[in-house]
Amino acid sequence: MARPKEFDRDEALRRAIPVFWEKGFAGTSTEDLVRAMGIGRQSLYDTFGDKRRLFLEALRAYNADGVAAIMKRLRAGPTALAAIERVLVELAEARDGARSLGCMGVNAVCELARDDDEVRALTATSAALLEAVLKDAIDEGRSRGDIGRGIDSRAAARFLAATLSGMKVQAKAGASAEALRDVAAFAVQSLRPR
Amino acid sequence: MARPKEFDRDEALRRAIPVFWEKGFAGTSTEDLVRAMGIGRQSLYDTFGDKRRLFLEALRAYNADGVAAIMKRLRAGPTALAAIERVLVELAEARDGARSLGCMGVNAVCELARDDDEVRALTATSAALLEAVLKDAIDEGRSRGDIGRGIDSRAAARFLAATLSGMKVQAKAGASAEALRDVAAFAVQSLRPR
Repeated sequence: MARPKEFDRDEALRRAIPVFWEKGFAGTSTEDLVRAMGIGRQSLYDTFGDKRRLFLEALRAYNADGVAAIMKRLRAGPTALAAIERVLVELAEARDGARSLGCMGVNAVCELARDDDEVRALTATSAALLEAVLKDAIDEGRSRGDIGRGIDSRAAARFLAATLSGMKVQAKAGASAEALRDVAAFAVQSLRPR
Repeated sequence: MARPKEFDRDEALRRAIPVFWEKGFAGTSTEDLVRAMGIGRQSLYDTFGDKRRLFLEALRAYNADGVAAIMKRLRAGPTALAAIERVLVELAEARDGARSLGCMGVNAVCELARDDDEVRALTATSAALLEAVLKDAIDEGRSRGDIGRGIDSRAAARFLAATLSGMKVQAKAGASAEALRDVAAFAVQSLRPR
């Protein structure tokens, strides 16, 4: 009996991410996935289920990577506010160069969130984690004094998460790096002690 | 010779907007449009060109309406800051009730902006107008003192536009009205005189 070719499941999943990111869920064909992932159609179905299951898994991995990257930068210091500024400015600088793909998470929300409970649930989990990570950084900044002590850290975390989403949409819409840097600077300024 | 049934062009265009808004460009079929617009397929092509031309026209009308509504609220006072607060809070409150459709403009950016120059150009026009309208309100608030005089009004306008986009994405992702009110309150707070 023929044995299916072995492949690295995680590696195959990683290769599906840029396809969904660029083309969206509806715009991605099984053929696109098979080509990018370097596996056969049957292996795809056997390993990941259908296109929707694969999309949800890719989105979960993408979101987890995004929050992990932000968490890492927030821990790199030197202060909480400087680290937050770096997260925002890097998003603005990333705008230079190629046309923005935007954010796969934001794209997925816009394309699917209204009718897809799983996309919403998965996004809510990731948003709650991002909010907690940002809140921790803000609390640390408040206790050290680089962020205003009078600031409500939960509200500020929600606000920063909205700013990140908004900047991603603006970047994809073609906003200049200068305009995005303005947004980043204003958001950072709003956290400083008064 | 049979004469095509007369219809109101603008009314037909208005009826296409909710279809594209809900289903996106790729997800909308000509059949969906014909049904919603109450016109025949041939009238649709004769009057609006193809689906893409109709989509661009619908998006332009949607964006123009959105900016006009914000402009109207900003002029309603009583102060510039109070009016800005109302624009943001109304967006947060609109979250209650039915599942959010999000914003057709943001949806269009996420679905199409990377590869569609016309969607990007049309979005840039509308974003520049929104920025100018917000900047005027901020300048007025600065001169009257309800907004901090030290604030860079162009940066603040870009920041508010990013906040609006971010809140729309969060609303569609299922954020609570409470979380959105936090974002609105924080953004407003950042404009106050220090």
